[in-house]
Formats: sequence, C-alpha cells, structure tokens
Amino acid sequence: MADRKEELTQAIEVQAAKVRQLKAEGAEKTVVEPEAAILRTLHQELAGLEGVKKTKTAKNSFTLKTAKGTKDYNDKEMAIREKVFSTITKVFKKHGAVTIDTPVFELKEILSGKYGEDSKLIYDLADQGGEECSLRYDLTVPFARFLAMNGKEYQNLKRYHIAKVYRRDQPAMTKGRMREFYQCDFDIAGSYDPMIPDAEILRILCEALTNLDLGKFTVKLNHRKILDGIFQVCGVPEANIRPISSAVDKLDKLPWEDVKKEMTQEKGLDAEVADKIGEYVKLKGSRDLLEKLLQDEVLTKNKNAAEGLADMGLLFDFMDAFEITHLMSFDLSLARGLDYYTGIIYEAVTEKSAPPPKQDGVVDDKKKKKNKNGEEDELDESTVGVGSIAAGGRYDNLVGMFSGTNKKGEPNLKIPCVGVSIGVERVFSILMAKQQSADIKSNETEVYVISVGDSLLKERMQLAKELWDNDIKASFMFKTKPKLDKQFAVCEKDHIPLAVIIGTDELEKGLVRIKDMRSKDESQGGGISITRDEMVATLKSKLAQL
Amino acid sequence: MADRKEELTQAIEVQAAKVRQLKAEGAEKTVVEPEAAILRTLHQELAGLEGVKKTKTAKNSFTLKTAKGTKDYNDKEMAIREKVFSTITKVFKKHGAVTIDTPVFELKEILSGKYGEDSKLIYDLADQGGEECSLRYDLTVPFARFLAMNGKEYQNLKRYHIAKVYRRDQPAMTKGRMREFYQCDFDIAGSYDPMIPDAEILRILCEALTNLDLGKFTVKLNHRKILDGIFQVCGVPEANIRPISSAVDKLDKLPWEDVKKEMTQEKGLDAEVADKIGEYVKLKGSRDLLEKLLQDEVLTKNKNAAEGLADMGLLFDFMDAFEITHLMSFDLSLARGLDYYTGIIYEAVTEKSAPPPKQDGVVDDKKKKKNKNGEEDELDESTVGVGSIAAGGRYDNLVGMFSGTNKKGEPNLKIPCVGVSIGVERVFSILMAKQQSADIKSNETEVYVISVGDSLLKERMQLAKELWDNDIKASFMFKTKPKLDKQFAVCEKDHIPLAVIIGTDELEKGLVRIKDMRSKDESQGGGISITRDEMVATLKSKLAQL
Repeated sequence: MADRKEELTQAIEVQAAKVRQLKAEGAEKTVVEPEAAILRTLHQELAGLEGVKKTKTAKNSFTLKTAKGTKDYNDKEMAIREKVFSTITKVFKKHGAVTIDTPVFELKEILSGKYGEDSKLIYDLADQGGEECSLRYDLTVPFARFLAMNGKEYQNLKRYHIAKVYRRDQPAMTKGRMREFYQCDFDIAGSYDPMIPDAEILRILCEALTNLDLGKFTVKLNHRKILDGIFQVCGVPEANIRPISSAVDKLDKLPWEDVKKEMTQEKGLDAEVADKIGEYVKLKGSRDLLEKLLQDEVLTKNKNAAEGLADMGLLFDFMDAFEITHLMSFDLSLARGLDYYTGIIYEAVTEKSAPPPKQDGVVDDKKKKKNKNGEEDELDESTVGVGSIAAGGRYDNLVGMFSGTNKKGEPNLKIPCVGVSIGVERVFSILMAKQQSADIKSNETEVYVISVGDSLLKERMQLAKELWDNDIKASFMFKTKPKLDKQFAVCEKDHIPLAVIIGTDELEKGLVRIKDMRSKDESQGGGISITRDEMVATLKSKLAQL
Repeated sequence: MADRKEELTQAIEVQAAKVRQLKAEGAEKTVVEPEAAILRTLHQELAGLEGVKKTKTAKNSFTLKTAKGTKDYNDKEMAIREKVFSTITKVFKKHGAVTIDTPVFELKEILSGKYGEDSKLIYDLADQGGEECSLRYDLTVPFARFLAMNGKEYQNLKRYHIAKVYRRDQPAMTKGRMREFYQCDFDIAGSYDPMIPDAEILRILCEALTNLDLGKFTVKLNHRKILDGIFQVCGVPEANIRPISSAVDKLDKLPWEDVKKEMTQEKGLDAEVADKIGEYVKLKGSRDLLEKLLQDEVLTKNKNAAEGLADMGLLFDFMDAFEITHLMSFDLSLARGLDYYTGIIYEAVTEKSAPPPKQDGVVDDKKKKKNKNGEEDELDESTVGVGSIAAGGRYDNLVGMFSGTNKKGEPNLKIPCVGVSIGVERVFSILMAKQQSADIKSNETEVYVISVGDSLLKERMQLAKELWDNDIKASFMFKTKPKLDKQFAVCEKDHIPLAVIIGTDELEKGLVRIKDMRSKDESQGGGISITRDEMVATLKSKLAQL
C-alpha cells in the first residue's frame, strides 16, 4: 500500500502541473475539465488509502453515530410512540383486524417493477453469496406477496401492520424525512360487495385520527375512474393519462397556472385540453358535487366516469350510515402518486398539516427555494406544515402481479384490496411538539421504596418483592446506604406518584409510611403511617384514584 | 451470452472426458478430485447462465417466497407472539424499565470486532455510495453504542428492547434457527452497589419465565471471576483461559471425556491440569457449594476467585430477599460463549428444553449424527429439546469500547451493565406446540352483527357504528344479501362470542336479538329479544362475564 501511495503522490504532482499549465495557456474549459477530473480522482484514491491507514493505527478512532438518515428513539420518544401505536391498534382491533408480520428484507425481484422511478431508493443487501435481497420499501408490496403466497387460506383478511420501512432518500431530519421510518398500514383484502370495505376503511381512519387527538382534520376523497373519465372526455391521449394525473396531484402545493404549465410545456398537452381539465379539478364539495357531476351528460357517457360516480353514490350512502360524511371533502384535484390505485383514493390533512391558503394564481415565493444554481428546488415542506397525515385507496390488481398469469394472460389469483397508511412519523412530530420532554413519564413505576436514616437494603428488597408479588410496579435505589434527598429526587425525575418509606423505628413497630410524592402539601409531612398488613391494600386504593 | 454458453458446453464435454479417462485409469483420488472440481465449476456457471436466460424470457416467472432463513408470521402466530411480548413487557415495566429503539442497521465499524469468529455472519448492506452499513447482529452492541453516545444523559438506565436481529447463519427451520429472529433484552446500566441490579435481573427473569407458563425451569448460575480463578489455580496458561473456558461451556451437551479431549488434544492442555479442572466443573449446588468453595484455601487465595466468591455471597443474600434462591443452580460448568462477560453469568433451562440426562462418561449415540463423510456432525438439537430459554450476565467493559480512551489508555466513559436475553423464538415454539392453530383467536371481535332474511345492509352498518361508538369490538359481513349460515360460520371460524341479530320484524318493533354463539344450548333458540335501547348495556354486561 505504501508503494501505491507513492505512485499516487507522484501522479498527483504530474497531473496538477498539467492542469496548471493548461489553465495558464487559457485552454478551453472542455479541455481543462477532463484533466481536472482525473486529478480529483487521484486525490480521492489517496485520501481513501490514508483513511484506511489511519483507522488501522488508531483502533478506537471511529465516528460514534447512527447511520445516515436513521436515529435512536430514547425512552421519552418511545413513550409517545407506544401511545400512538396503542391508540391506533385499539381502533384497528375494534374493527376485527388481525396483524401479520413479514421479514424486513425480501427477494430483490419481489420489489422490482413496483415503484417506478423510486426504485432507485431501494436498499440492497450486499451480495455475500446466495439470494439477492433488498430491504422493504413499504408494507403494501410484502402484504400483496403474502396474499399471493397464501391466497388459498387468506381469501379475505382485515390486517394491520406497523413496522419500519427503508428508503435511500436524501434525509431531511428537520422535515421528518428519514431513511428508516415507521409505516402503519391497515388493509382489507377480499372480494366483497362494492364499497362496503371502502366505507369501513374511511370510518376506521376517522376514528383513529379522532382518537389521536390531532385537532380538526379533513379527508380528501376522489375516485381514479372519475379522474380517468375526466381526462378521457377532455381529450387527454391514453398514453398521457398517468403523467397528466401526476401533474394534477401537485395542485395541493402549486397554483393551477404552474400545473397547467407542466401539462402543456413539459407534457405537451393542448392548452385547450388543459383548460377543460382545469374546470373539473377545481371542483370540490360533498354529495352536492356528486349530484352536479351526474348532471354532466358528457361525463356520464364515459364508462370509467359512470362507474366511478356509481361507486361514489354507494359510498356516500355508507358514509352516512357510519356518520363520517361531514369529515369528507370530495375533491377532484386529488390524484395520488402511486400507479396501482384502481378505485377510490383519499388523503387526510389536519389543520396543522394543511398547506397555507393559496392566492389565486400567484405563486407564494416563500414556498419555493432557489438552490445555488438558481434552479427551483423542491418545495420547502417546513413552511407548508407536515403535509398529509394519512392516505390510501383501492388497489385491485397488485396481488395478481405476483400470482403469474394463465393462458389468457389473466392473473391466476385476484384478491382486490383497499387500504390506508397512517403517517405515524408525522403524528409523533405533532405530539412531541405538544409537550416538554421532561414532562413525559417513560417508565410505569407507581411506588418507590425508600429508607430513612439506615441502609435497610434487605428490608427494602423484601418490601419491593412483596409489592411485585401483588402486581404493584415498584423500584428502590440500588445503594447500600441511600440518601433521603437522592431517593426523593428519583421520584421527582421519574414522575413516581407514591413512596413507601421505612425506618428502623417503623420496622420495629410493624409500620410503614405512605407518601404522595406529587403533592407539595406540607401538612402530609412524612406521609401517613399504616401497618405493614394494610400496605398493599392502601397502595392499591391510592393507585386506583390516580 | 450465447457464445459463452457454447464455450462452456464444449469445455464441459472436454473436461468430463478427462475425468472419465482418469477414473478409468484408476488414478489417485488426489489427481481426480481437482479435475472433477473444475467440471463442477463449469456446470455451475452454465446453470447460472441458463437461469438468467429463463428469467429474462418469462417475466412473471419468479419464485414466490420469502428470503432464505426468513418467514412470514400469520395472524395466529402473531397472536401468540403478541401474548408472549405483552407478558414479558408487563414484567419489565413492573420493575421500572423503559424501552429505547435503535436502527435496524448500524455503521459497519460499530459492529466490527465485537463478535469474534461470528463476525462472518453479519449481513452487510450493498455499497450504493455513502457509508458502509450492516444489519444489527444483536441488541447488546447497539445498546452499548447508544450509552456511549448518550452517556451524559443516561448514566443509568433500566431498559428493555424487543426487536429483530440478523445472522447469515445456515438456517435450520426445524430447529427454529432463522436468519431473521427476535431478541428480547433487558439490561440495567449504571454504577451501583455490588450485586443489587444483578439480583433484580435474576428476579425479573424468574418472574417472566413463571408468567410465560413454560413449566418448571432452573437458572444455572456461575461467575466469570470464579471460573478464571479455577483455571488459574489449576495451572491453565493465561493465553489459554478463554479457549479452555469455551471447552467447558460444552459440558451441557458433551460428556466430560469429550471436553477433556478438546482441552488436551486440540488445545494442548496438560492432562493433569485438565483433570484438576474436571474436579471443579462437575460441582453444582446452592449456597452449600459456595460454603464448600470458601473452605478451599488454594482457591480463596486467588484474587479473581476471592472476588467472585464474595459477589456470590452477596447475591445469595439478595436472592433470599427476593425469594428466588430455590430456582437457582450454582453450576461451575456454566461458562457462556461470549467474551465480554466480566461477572455473574446465567442461563435458564426449562424441563422441556433441558438435554437428556447423560450417562457417566458414555456418549449417548442418539445425540450425535454422523455426516456422510463419517465425521461427527454438530449436535442434533431436535433430540435435546430446544436448548436454553434465556441467558445473560454482567458486562462492565463493553460501553468503554465505544467511548475512546484517555492518555492512560483507560476508556473515557465506563458504564457497567448487567442484562438478560430471553429466547422468545424458543418460547413461541413451545407455546405454539401447545395448541391447535385453529383454536387460536387472532382477532378481538366480540360481537357479529347479523341480519336474517333481508339484506338490511344500511341497518347493519348503523348498528355496528353504534357498537363502535360504545367501544364494542364489532364486525358485519361485507355482503348486500348475506346468508344466515355464512354469517354463523364466520362467528365459528373467528371465535366471535356474541351475535346481534336483526330482521325486518324486529326492526319494526324496535327490538334486536342477542345470541351466545359459543353455546350449543338449543334452548336459547334465536337468542334473547331485547329493545334496541338496552342493547349496548346488555352486550357490555355479557362481555364482562366472558
């Protein structure tokens, strides 16, 4: 390696001289740049070698950090996270859901061809011999793979899955965009009568968001077939329907003028066609909008649109029965990015997460950032809130992609699905922002066993054991001779509500003292004195009152 | 590629002829074997090419499976798994534990140098630019990394972590050895007075195993310093202590004669020294053994042994206070594989998981399998139960490995730890084996809403909504016109205890019928008829009695 380093050092000198020479001669950039690139490569290789050497000599000198785009969750964050999960799973279970679990990595070929351009964000495992594997990118594709594998046994399934997924995206920690993050999916798989499971999913979404206590929210609702019908009757060429749909999807962040520009200038749509689309996608409402569209004879003659409108009619009936219609906004501008949706689509926004109101046709400059090349950078999400809080839709053909096809080219197995994904990371952010970290109780300890004056270690141990035996959550200080103020400080820091206090005096008389550690009331003094026999019952009754 | 295939086909013909020729000539094995190896390589490459070609022509024909060594958990398995987790976490929380979470992958350098030979089992992520990362191999090293990074804030911590870890081991599904599997760790970090947290960890372990209802269990207990002291007084050279210790660790699976052979023949120990060790490591007992060792003047003069024996004295006192001494076996043959233990070590075995009793010095042939080369294969775990069910020990120096060292070469940060890992995968296997899959209720649905005769879809929806609003777990059939027997079948399959039945007649009279679906009692007929107003209260009182 020393030889190679010498070689490189010499090569760098020669190459650097060459670049300097060319620049001094005023050579064209196209001539200088390739030579400069070679110089940079040489520098990089040398730096690499020196890096390796450094690590080898100083064994302990490595960066103490988590991998890029990942983070640890400490006890306070976990307490909030578990509360979020238990709130959500309680709702899922109320609706009869089971949970299944799939591995963190899948065969690479299972994931390929499912995510379009975003496939470049998939993490691969190193080739260490054997199969090629990748970390899961979402929970939907593994679920579809599970159904395709177990379709005989699971013709229908209400399942939820809360687990981490992996995307090699450019992390933006401040915006909550990570490379490892949780998804929380609920899906109903199976062939049922139309729109019944769809309505229950929406009901579940509303219950979950209500119970999470995130403030007011709205569920934007649309139907892929209505949208496709609109594009068709407006005159969008068949091949351009998905690209135009993805332009429409940006309407929650961009004004119509910008979206129209994308349609006409980037995607070559006639301005007239774009304007017709513009008339439709600005519409939003509730059942009134449905009635209005049903009057539109051009639209209702389109097969897709007619099917979508019929679905929406049923859905409004069912949402009325579930009393959630008032939380919905039938919004023709909602398009959703993913290709695989085939029926209704939806997206929930909370008031906190909604983008600021747009001025008609005027671009809000604060929402756009220019990068150093003067090009427009992606939208700065930090100024538009945290975006949508949940989203989903119906996807009837995904399972079939895994089942192989019969002679007619039809999938061997067809399991229609409808599902929703709750953006739990965004929910965490909102809930964490609501409270001071120090105020969060991350343990569940109810009683601290304290000794006054003497050590009484074995006595504290026996007392804690008695509490544990009676299912009381108890701790004591791991000190032979603990100080009283230190023991009190633990109660304060760990938010422990009650203390059992013993001293030699009490022990001799068969007594203990119970003190409410939350109360600053001086009159309780050292707490109330009771007999040891009464201790468990007294504590239980006090705990029941907390 | 076609060219290469042709080349290979020809090369295979030539090579195959060569091998046949050599064999026909009666050539030595040492001559034939290398040529045969070349032939196999050629065959493999050809098979590879043909495999690739096949995939390219038939797009949909890929293997529908999970990656090697991983599996899906279906709803029934998940129900058991969640029960295990909630039983264990309840115990952890009773003892004041919090949970933290670390990422699934770590920087490669964090894991390197921690697992000795087993480092070869670490999964690496592909180099897609940026940092080199690996999937976590256990939860202990990430925990130590977390403490080293957050040592100021977390000088002491009682934390549990239940999560998946990854090992590129040869999977043995029948034995429950997977490449992705759960670990369930509880650790107490911090500087405390001696043996107090150690005793609480053992108490927690006993509570958890008792609550998991796995039958009778024993915790084997030993101390690294006592073991090191024994090796020293017996005359084991310092450099040979860890290898000899790992030979002793096999005493639960191999008879003494085999272990002695490993010590003397493989590891070059004097037979006399080995015999001295043999006298010690066959000892087991309780406090009586401790008393016996304290009489041993040779041993007590050894610094390590004396420290270990003092620790054990304290520990027995504390275990008495916690009333767990009767569950312990002080066992000098317990050595534990991992290098990083510095104090007490322990391993729990259930009666089900314990190896069959050994006959003195006689190898039980059923426990050994010969592979086809006639060499002894690894122990067949399927005949010796599922092995130990939990294990752990004190490790005082691991966090220091991450903290860097000061000028004197001492770690900048020292956080002593003691912990236990419960083998939850083994617990699952034992509990799954206890019951029929069909008997496991994986959903929590309490009430099924049934219609008789007519469709009544909207009415069923409204009724279900009323139940959900009152926190009753309810479902109904996603059918416009469901058949009665199909609805009853769902109750049976999903173990739903109660049904609310409506028909047009009942609706008109403002009545519903409630039927106990578990009872085969014919006398209840179609259930009891009550008014709609009474429904929620009646269901709640029936559910409370379940």
